[in-house]
Amino acid sequence: MEGECTRRGEGQVETSEAVHTVAEPPPQSTVDKMKVRMKETFFPDDPFRRFKGQPLKRKWVLAAQYLFPVLDWAPSYSFSLFKSDLVAGLTIASLAIPQATIYLFLLFCCGISYAKLASLPPVVGLYTSFVPPLVYSVLGSSRDLAVGPVSIASLVMGSMLRQVANPNTDPYLFLQLAFTATFFAGLFQASLGILRLGFIIDFLSKATLVGFMAGSAIIVSLQQLRNLLGIVHFTKKMGVVPVMSSVFHNTNEWSWQTAAMGICFLAFLLLARHVGMRRPKLYWISVGAPLASVIVSTLVVFLIKAQNHGVSTIGKLRCGLNRPSWDKLLFDGTHLSATMKTGLVTGIISLAEGIASGRTFASLRSYKVDGNKEMMAIGLMNIVGSCTSCYVSTGAFSRSAVNHNAGCKTAMSNVVMATTVMVTLLLLMPLFAYTPNVVLAAIIIAAVVGLVDVPAACNIWKLDKVDFLVCLSSFLGVVFVSVQQGLATAIGLSTFRILLQITRPKMIAIGNIPGTSIYRDMHQYEEAKGIPGFLILAIEAPINFSNTTYLNERHVAVTPNSVITRWIENETNETTMEDKEASLRFLILDLSAVPTVDTSGITFLNELKKSTEKDGLEVIFVNPMGEVMEKLQRANKIHEFLGVGSLYLTIGEAVISLSPFIKESA
Amino acid sequence: MEGECTRRGEGQVETSEAVHTVAEPPPQSTVDKMKVRMKETFFPDDPFRRFKGQPLKRKWVLAAQYLFPVLDWAPSYSFSLFKSDLVAGLTIASLAIPQATIYLFLLFCCGISYAKLASLPPVVGLYTSFVPPLVYSVLGSSRDLAVGPVSIASLVMGSMLRQVANPNTDPYLFLQLAFTATFFAGLFQASLGILRLGFIIDFLSKATLVGFMAGSAIIVSLQQLRNLLGIVHFTKKMGVVPVMSSVFHNTNEWSWQTAAMGICFLAFLLLARHVGMRRPKLYWISVGAPLASVIVSTLVVFLIKAQNHGVSTIGKLRCGLNRPSWDKLLFDGTHLSATMKTGLVTGIISLAEGIASGRTFASLRSYKVDGNKEMMAIGLMNIVGSCTSCYVSTGAFSRSAVNHNAGCKTAMSNVVMATTVMVTLLLLMPLFAYTPNVVLAAIIIAAVVGLVDVPAACNIWKLDKVDFLVCLSSFLGVVFVSVQQGLATAIGLSTFRILLQITRPKMIAIGNIPGTSIYRDMHQYEEAKGIPGFLILAIEAPINFSNTTYLNERHVAVTPNSVITRWIENETNETTMEDKEASLRFLILDLSAVPTVDTSGITFLNELKKSTEKDGLEVIFVNPMGEVMEKLQRANKIHEFLGVGSLYLTIGEAVISLSPFIKESA
Repeated sequence: MEGECTRRGEGQVETSEAVHTVAEPPPQSTVDKMKVRMKETFFPDDPFRRFKGQPLKRKWVLAAQYLFPVLDWAPSYSFSLFKSDLVAGLTIASLAIPQATIYLFLLFCCGISYAKLASLPPVVGLYTSFVPPLVYSVLGSSRDLAVGPVSIASLVMGSMLRQVANPNTDPYLFLQLAFTATFFAGLFQASLGILRLGFIIDFLSKATLVGFMAGSAIIVSLQQLRNLLGIVHFTKKMGVVPVMSSVFHNTNEWSWQTAAMGICFLAFLLLARHVGMRRPKLYWISVGAPLASVIVSTLVVFLIKAQNHGVSTIGKLRCGLNRPSWDKLLFDGTHLSATMKTGLVTGIISLAEGIASGRTFASLRSYKVDGNKEMMAIGLMNIVGSCTSCYVSTGAFSRSAVNHNAGCKTAMSNVVMATTVMVTLLLLMPLFAYTPNVVLAAIIIAAVVGLVDVPAACNIWKLDKVDFLVCLSSFLGVVFVSVQQGLATAIGLSTFRILLQITRPKMIAIGNIPGTSIYRDMHQYEEAKGIPGFLILAIEAPINFSNTTYLNERHVAVTPNSVITRWIENETNETTMEDKEASLRFLILDLSAVPTVDTSGITFLNELKKSTEKDGLEVIFVNPMGEVMEKLQRANKIHEFLGVGSLYLTIGEAVISLSPFIKESA
Repeated sequence: MEGECTRRGEGQVETSEAVHTVAEPPPQSTVDKMKVRMKETFFPDDPFRRFKGQPLKRKWVLAAQYLFPVLDWAPSYSFSLFKSDLVAGLTIASLAIPQATIYLFLLFCCGISYAKLASLPPVVGLYTSFVPPLVYSVLGSSRDLAVGPVSIASLVMGSMLRQVANPNTDPYLFLQLAFTATFFAGLFQASLGILRLGFIIDFLSKATLVGFMAGSAIIVSLQQLRNLLGIVHFTKKMGVVPVMSSVFHNTNEWSWQTAAMGICFLAFLLLARHVGMRRPKLYWISVGAPLASVIVSTLVVFLIKAQNHGVSTIGKLRCGLNRPSWDKLLFDGTHLSATMKTGLVTGIISLAEGIASGRTFASLRSYKVDGNKEMMAIGLMNIVGSCTSCYVSTGAFSRSAVNHNAGCKTAMSNVVMATTVMVTLLLLMPLFAYTPNVVLAAIIIAAVVGLVDVPAACNIWKLDKVDFLVCLSSFLGVVFVSVQQGLATAIGLSTFRILLQITRPKMIAIGNIPGTSIYRDMHQYEEAKGIPGFLILAIEAPINFSNTTYLNERHVAVTPNSVITRWIENETNETTMEDKEASLRFLILDLSAVPTVDTSGITFLNELKKSTEKDGLEVIFVNPMGEVMEKLQRANKIHEFLGVGSLYLTIGEAVISLSPFIKESA
């Protein structure tokens, strides 16, 4: 104790020349700090930067360009650009038309024959490939995104709405609910963008998505077994168990003609996909295969009159463009919560796919996509869509990849695609009459097979076991329980993991690397050695309410002594434990990796300092960061717990300055 | 680019002597890692430590002592210890008996006269002060905790159960529900302890509790206005607005006799409290005041027959001990979800109070309270309580403080208190017949006033504005909306804050403090200077799925160059921006404060490395921690993105080693 008195009195003077002081960050008012924090949270991409210092007129032009990116590229649009966009647009149209037709299957869970929808807009899928791309080409900032219905959002929307309405018995109500859910999805997406809350979709981590996509692909494929085998009576549930039992309980309904046809086309499509992936130059084979399948199968059915031999076909479809559907939106109380929930879930899922696709291709071509702006564009597109007989649409990853490969230059390729779809809607609809459902099923299966990304899952396993657990839970949840449950579990698990890292922060014992002034983790660096008389610990997380109890009980409380013992045990030295405990004089806490503290954290540091003093041990804080330093100073004004020489800039300086007091007391 | 080639070829060799390598932590299998992580998460306090290396018989003894801490202290219990416990026990009994009687008011929202409960156990509050303390004295490990009903848990349970049953019209059902909710609370508390999930209560931060306590105190006090003013018709709602409007809409019902009596006793109690706080030696005045008030007021009412002048009294109460109530537990579907929810909320709240009180007094007397063990004890105590006509009980902070001050030594003081309560229940109940309700109201108000901790709120405001916001939202939520909403908002807000710190991590630009090899935040240390050719950044959070998008878009992506510009802008130097960007050769990422990465984080580092290389900029990682280093190495096996010399142990070594290449390329 005498040594301590000496140190308090003179130590600081004696060593002050060699020692650097810890600085406080420049003072900043609370309002300024809040502003900075708000900006970092909601405007990290600084969208107003380019408005700065511009004349008023220019500001208006910039604002218009921000809202309507079409104004950015349209004025300088040229014929050569159009040629590229034309090719790309036709390419994606050839993919989109068969896909769009079949995504409606997913929405209705393949449980409906188109004929039943005679009084309704017959091909909502195609409608959704017509209006939204046009809206997106005006509002969207991605040049590569191909917009339209996507498999997973169709699947999720269908499975959620089927819980409140039966598409077979009441298709009209079902479509109304689908449009209403689409409206809410759009509203939700646009609000996320306007409120700058886009970071919410970041919580769908890569691992979650890998599992989710694979699970969805399997569910979608299994659903198609119905059409592939020609089964008439099929379960309405989505899980693997009811679907498989439904398949094998209805073996008498299997139609060999349908199955044979389906397997042939599926084999052809998978082969084309394989060739397209192996030889990037031949990618057009995989792109053209679906359209070719539709044409060939339609011709075959027409020529051999297979519809009379148990092969079910789409049937007659009326020509005509989208009709207004705002009068079909249902806002009464009965179905409101169901449509809002469906809108929320499909909104997030489709947003995640759209934004991720947009960012991927933007980074490939080195331009920037503003996430929040994109959300507004996708949201508006869905709101407009819901009023024009479309259901939820977004940027599809697979079609965008085709668009990108086909050499699109601007969003004009979407216009080209929409125009092609329009021509189809106006003129070519009757041609689909003989298209067999089985070939659509084969196209769906071939399309979603690519979503099962086994190598990505392997890499996740190799890198991070907990991430793999997230991936697996997402996969199993989707396959065996439900799409929403699977997603919720995976998101909950990954968020819980983050919270757990804060709640149970790492604490490491630090030693000196001999011959240097470098101090590092003694576990990681075997050559690092502890210094007699000192216990040096580093905390690796913000110190806050969620971990102070843990830190106190587990790590640094010195009463009872057993906790300190835990740290000393790790050092290998000839002296006995008791000797070491007795010779300990300083507990150095390295705060370099503590970005923030809250009031609980300050209380913790304060109490630690006081309680260890009782045991003749002094706590030294090393290198607190700006915010931590500020709070320590403010707390010191209240509690006065920072004595002279409680703060050092580096561990090395602390050890050198304090070593004399160890020898004195020894 | 030539410089880089040279560096790749020779640089490492040239400088390797001066440079320390980053070590990987000693290899550990996945299973071992999982074991360590599980232990840190669920058994941080290492409860099995003392079993290690003991003979089998001793292990049994230790296990019994762990489960029944009474075995720990009872064998060595002495008469001198008992003398202390007797004094403390009688002291808390004198406080507990009036309090326990009135907490039942809170449960029933003061909306019931005891006479109506004639067919029911009359004084559940006193019952709850009899059985649970006996159970706790056997199972509990705290020596200071005084167990019984507490105001806030009573309030919360009452307000939640009143949503499903009316205590006035159906008091029997209401009591059944209270016992059932108590059962679920106990079950939930015990499960938390057994599953080692005690850290869940840490999420009730100090700031949340300060706001919650103050809000509850105000609600409780306002409720007592009914009895203080003698109002007969009163609202059943809890919020400030309905209660105040109820008070001022019934001014004709105010009884001046009741009000005068109430204000006198309230003034006396507050004065006694003030004296007790100012002079710690006179604390017995504040302790004895409630009992004195009850006795005096009862005598006054009896002598002047005030019950005939509009002063309502408790009325006749039957003598008798707790009756079994397990047959009253309701597990049928109608009320199951309500009782489970009530049990969950009151369970957590009462647990938080009990554990916090236990820890506070344990640290004052330097012994240790095992949080998870305490949860099991409190949980079992409530399960037993629910079967013996008790509602939810826990360790009360205020009474434990009195117990501690009165010099209790062991949990025996709880036994003494329970015995005193037993005598009261058996013999003294008729004496309460003339006790006026108004004096109970005054006792409640005087008791909860201490829960409004203004200085604590001020300190929170001074230290941390966001914590204050949490505190305020908890307070306002409880006062204006509901207890559950207030708590949920505050917990949500503080959890969201933690997530936000991860989602929007701090990133700082680092410079050299001239004349040293110390590198620090250039914002915090004004003397720190940037080094030409280098951009040194530090990330202050785990790099994971929730922040990689932000880091990429905001901070380190070099395409487009504007993001790097953001960092260079901050440096003040004579050269122009373009020059600086052009002369940049190395981006040094200090990973010292990055405790973990996940697969998204690895992908981010990988892509950063690759995309910056395109721009002729090389990324150097400095001081990755154990886990990060391990993952980098594993990722390197897959992606091969760590070139030679991509890793350095300190920023200083990296700068010294790489500086020659800056000059070369310049």
